[in-house]
Amino acid sequence: MIQPALYLLPTTIGESDIDRAIPRANRDVMAQIKHFIVENVRTARRYLKRVDKDIDIDTLTFSELNKHTAPEDIAAYLAPLRRGEAVGVISEAGCPAIADPGADVVAIAQREGMRVIPLVGPSSIVMSLMASGFNGQSFAFNGYLPVERNERARAIRRCERKVYDEDQTQIFIETPYRNNRIVDDLIALCRPSTRLCIAADITGEGEYIKTKTLRQWKAERRELDKVPCIFLIYK
Amino acid sequence: MIQPALYLLPTTIGESDIDRAIPRANRDVMAQIKHFIVENVRTARRYLKRVDKDIDIDTLTFSELNKHTAPEDIAAYLAPLRRGEAVGVISEAGCPAIADPGADVVAIAQREGMRVIPLVGPSSIVMSLMASGFNGQSFAFNGYLPVERNERARAIRRCERKVYDEDQTQIFIETPYRNNRIVDDLIALCRPSTRLCIAADITGEGEYIKTKTLRQWKAERRELDKVPCIFLIYK
Repeated sequence: MIQPALYLLPTTIGESDIDRAIPRANRDVMAQIKHFIVENVRTARRYLKRVDKDIDIDTLTFSELNKHTAPEDIAAYLAPLRRGEAVGVISEAGCPAIADPGADVVAIAQREGMRVIPLVGPSSIVMSLMASGFNGQSFAFNGYLPVERNERARAIRRCERKVYDEDQTQIFIETPYRNNRIVDDLIALCRPSTRLCIAADITGEGEYIKTKTLRQWKAERRELDKVPCIFLIYK
Repeated sequence: MIQPALYLLPTTIGESDIDRAIPRANRDVMAQIKHFIVENVRTARRYLKRVDKDIDIDTLTFSELNKHTAPEDIAAYLAPLRRGEAVGVISEAGCPAIADPGADVVAIAQREGMRVIPLVGPSSIVMSLMASGFNGQSFAFNGYLPVERNERARAIRRCERKVYDEDQTQIFIETPYRNNRIVDDLIALCRPSTRLCIAADITGEGEYIKTKTLRQWKAERRELDKVPCIFLIYK
């Protein structure tokens, strides 16, 4: 029997095999949880079925947590845990509460002194950093860059400054249809000797993780449309 | 058969079960690798035996990569991959090339255009961030804080400034015997309303991950001696 706690349950990234992404022990934990807080009920149900095809989905309760959820509703999602039952948080891809709304429910649980237990799973931030060859002793994840042209240029310049002034690897993500634009922007705004690592489709069939200088990327462009990507820069 | 590549192979953190920390597919990859680059040969052998007790350790080659290894030796460690054989990198705890010397060999592999494949495993940085309830859209890992008193105070103040000015979660680690000192320093130097998450012995028997304000930590101190800890601050 698992103890009552808020369990943070990573999912696969993209369509990779469960056994490539998730330790076995996660299944045993998930099989004992009846209450789930999820970003999207349909994909969460499908994920649970993929992990354990014998799971009885109809005995489970799902609460949807996304950017439209009101704070008072989020607090109510923890009611089962207040009466001693385990609750699980599942995100759309990878680790919950990193780049998704899950952090709000974790903050409430921590405030109320509830036990929070994170499980192991794939993080595109960590995996791309491992494979980049960049400084892993100091790095920052910046989420999405601003879309507006001037703000975006300022953000890119600030990131590059931190690479040189603070010796800190800078990581950011972009919506897939802007992947090519971000590479253009980096080539236009940063030093040609600054290195860029492009990590695409991590753990997927088409996984591609390459580090080159911006000078090299300019000469050897790669089409990135519609692939989930993560970008890292370093000197 | 796995393809020739530099495989980045995470290990367990502390003494946790393999099945709690590592996906099954990692074993199949590890069983097919004959050449390993490791931080410490003795612990790497022991880890491989734990993952697969039938492994024939004596048929494997191990090259030691630590802060004393010369750059030209590191490049030579990739010789098997240059002739088409897979090479694995194993760190002492968690994900290789994040807070250990593994990044040097990855940088060389990337420079030579070799394929680098990161596998899934436990990262205390990601797991503590997930469980902290702090901002996961923007965060920085700062490694170890300086030891010298004034430099240390400056580093802590700079971190707290980034929390408020940049809305960025700040993460750092400390050698276990200085764990209590870091909490004292944060209490002395930061705002009482700043929140500190202490994550100790992640994935281990005594796992403890709590977020409180510094005001609360001051009133409810916890003895942290000799436990591997990671510290996060946020507003």
